[in-house]
Amino acid sequence: MADNRKRRRTDPTGDELPFKNKLKPDSAILEILKAFSTSSSASSSSSAAKTLTLQDLALPFRCREVADLSLSSVQTNIESLILKIAHSILAGHGFSFDVPSRSSANQLYVPELDRIVLKDKSSLRPFASISTVRKSAITTRILQLIHQLCIKGIHVTKRDLFYTDVKLFQDQIQSDAVLDDVSCMLGCTRSSLNVVAAEKGVVVGRLIFSDNGDMIDCTKMGMGGKAIPPNIDRVGDMQSDALFILLVEKDAAYMRLAEDRFYNRFPCIIVTAKGQPDVSTRLFLRKMKTELKLPVLALVDSDPYGLKILSVYGCGSKNMSYDSANLTTPDIKWLGVRPSDLDKYKIPEQCRLPMTEQDIKTGKDLLEEDFVKKNPGWVEELTLMVKTKQKAEIQALSTFGFQYLSEVYLPLKLQQKDWL
Amino acid sequence: MADNRKRRRTDPTGDELPFKNKLKPDSAILEILKAFSTSSSASSSSSAAKTLTLQDLALPFRCREVADLSLSSVQTNIESLILKIAHSILAGHGFSFDVPSRSSANQLYVPELDRIVLKDKSSLRPFASISTVRKSAITTRILQLIHQLCIKGIHVTKRDLFYTDVKLFQDQIQSDAVLDDVSCMLGCTRSSLNVVAAEKGVVVGRLIFSDNGDMIDCTKMGMGGKAIPPNIDRVGDMQSDALFILLVEKDAAYMRLAEDRFYNRFPCIIVTAKGQPDVSTRLFLRKMKTELKLPVLALVDSDPYGLKILSVYGCGSKNMSYDSANLTTPDIKWLGVRPSDLDKYKIPEQCRLPMTEQDIKTGKDLLEEDFVKKNPGWVEELTLMVKTKQKAEIQALSTFGFQYLSEVYLPLKLQQKDWL
Repeated sequence: MADNRKRRRTDPTGDELPFKNKLKPDSAILEILKAFSTSSSASSSSSAAKTLTLQDLALPFRCREVADLSLSSVQTNIESLILKIAHSILAGHGFSFDVPSRSSANQLYVPELDRIVLKDKSSLRPFASISTVRKSAITTRILQLIHQLCIKGIHVTKRDLFYTDVKLFQDQIQSDAVLDDVSCMLGCTRSSLNVVAAEKGVVVGRLIFSDNGDMIDCTKMGMGGKAIPPNIDRVGDMQSDALFILLVEKDAAYMRLAEDRFYNRFPCIIVTAKGQPDVSTRLFLRKMKTELKLPVLALVDSDPYGLKILSVYGCGSKNMSYDSANLTTPDIKWLGVRPSDLDKYKIPEQCRLPMTEQDIKTGKDLLEEDFVKKNPGWVEELTLMVKTKQKAEIQALSTFGFQYLSEVYLPLKLQQKDWL
Repeated sequence: MADNRKRRRTDPTGDELPFKNKLKPDSAILEILKAFSTSSSASSSSSAAKTLTLQDLALPFRCREVADLSLSSVQTNIESLILKIAHSILAGHGFSFDVPSRSSANQLYVPELDRIVLKDKSSLRPFASISTVRKSAITTRILQLIHQLCIKGIHVTKRDLFYTDVKLFQDQIQSDAVLDDVSCMLGCTRSSLNVVAAEKGVVVGRLIFSDNGDMIDCTKMGMGGKAIPPNIDRVGDMQSDALFILLVEKDAAYMRLAEDRFYNRFPCIIVTAKGQPDVSTRLFLRKMKTELKLPVLALVDSDPYGLKILSVYGCGSKNMSYDSANLTTPDIKWLGVRPSDLDKYKIPEQCRLPMTEQDIKTGKDLLEEDFVKKNPGWVEELTLMVKTKQKAEIQALSTFGFQYLSEVYLPLKLQQKDWL
């Protein structure tokens, strides 16, 4: 490669890259990042000392939250639950489960906590009733299967669980729904039940961690990176000298940064779920943020889905709101690509895409969401997007050259502390 | 965990697992695998000495194939091509590209090679013609962009390429199509052009390789495994003491085997593309097979798509037939789950699924394909599937317990050399 470079004239687009002349030397940008990282870590440790919990808030109603429990606690909880039921049957009171409601009427966004939580409504699921006999049988069976997983100490997928008793479950939707019920009933996260989601995410950069006992150095994972493990409880010993975590929506941008080893120029950890955030990546991101106390910067498409993806990482998805405390990573900064960047960075018209009716509707709906409203900067950006009716992908930056993202756009963003 | 096991009665399903009593000790199974691996490696090295090429076959027409070229060869090829065009213009003959046809009429399955190849029909793409002026402009632009990649020595995605000139390309379909044209014209693979596909696959087990200069030990990748790198030209130094490669269709089965560290009981390399095979995983599998000379056993769903996925790994997809020699892995064995396994392993009726009309049509279409016809065992299995109109996922084996796959089904399959 080196001799090629010598033989040829220098890259024509080299120094004419828009805004490249605004870039300070890397050392100056590093100073900015160090200050940011320190203040962020200080604020998260001081807030750790006074982290608000549901109890602190004295809300006018009770809320339900789940926690990570050890395998043996889950096992004990199941055994006490079944024992209680046995007593109830022996006492002549019959057999029924008290199941927390997970419906949207029972959900609530709590601004102080910046996430969606579940209120404490619950309903009885008696065995001796035609309308609930099947569901209570399924619940018992799922409890039994989870108990087996506890004893064996292994992880399975929801699909595996379904196939252990197709005759009873009939449809995976039914076993999945009851699995979430069981999480709520036992007061533990789904990953505590050893039921894991398919893995999709990858991580690369300044991070060392253990996966099932193996030490992984993510600076030595080439361009492919390390696949994020599906079972967060076997992940530990996180160490890092990074100054921030860069959360990337798309695979293509991730690859560009991994190949350019962006994390060596600006010490960081780069992570992507390749589109929609999956549970494993969300758990992994949260664990990194909590253990390493690093700020998280998000690089997503400039469209309503980009912001939606950011929000799922940040404050949870509605159908897993009972688990929001464990799945969400608070205080993610929106680095880019933001609607205002399109003009600021002079993205050519032909690289912007018109928003569809559906896009605009999604954008307007997002403007009504509490987690957007509480951040005035986000409201401004989203309003601009809906007004201009234009969207753009991260890849649109390639219009200025393949490495514009890693060589100009991101460094300048970091230098200008241009995040919201 | 250990004390849990002591406290509890042993797992009820432990020794009653169907067919568990048929299993010989692991040492006996290992002997079988060693013999298989040696014979397979011998046949592939002896066949390497006499590997059939298109030239050997003396076909009644010429075929076109591409090869992996170094970056500097690609650069030289582009420069000579442009020089030739400049000469043509100066000589008053105008400016046109000679572009190989990639249409299905120009494709052919060659049974001796066991893959689909491209015949040598090509067509002119003159600049001075209204119908081709745009396409020839796009072709010139793509050649220029690839030339830039060669000089810079970096990799980009198709999406990046599209965004460098949205005004000209208008639509990614157009730049993608011309990219394939350019591969054919230059006689090189798409990965030689440094245009890579998104990564999706993961690998775990008895394999050590280098990814972009970093040495990766896939026995030390925990449960998550190593993400397969998108750029195969930066993968090298493969070493392994495995006896076979286990190609798995689905993520869930992969996770079971990774968690149980199946590769330590029966030394193997486990790889999955999580569904549809992507180019990176196909290139990686081929490289493993070629460099390590290991037999490849496939574990796919018992449905027409499982066999189709196997066939894409084995003899290529039709729209990339010009690159079949580099993307395909010959001689993949169909280990399971095969239609005959459903009865043989007594998979309960409720874990089998009825085939839809579309499934049955796909199955019947496959029966007409040359690559199926040449393997009588496959024809028999597929005929049985279409006749019984039943399909089943790999996960259906979970009906006998979560670890039935790794503890009974696969070991017994290996012991009985039950592959086709």
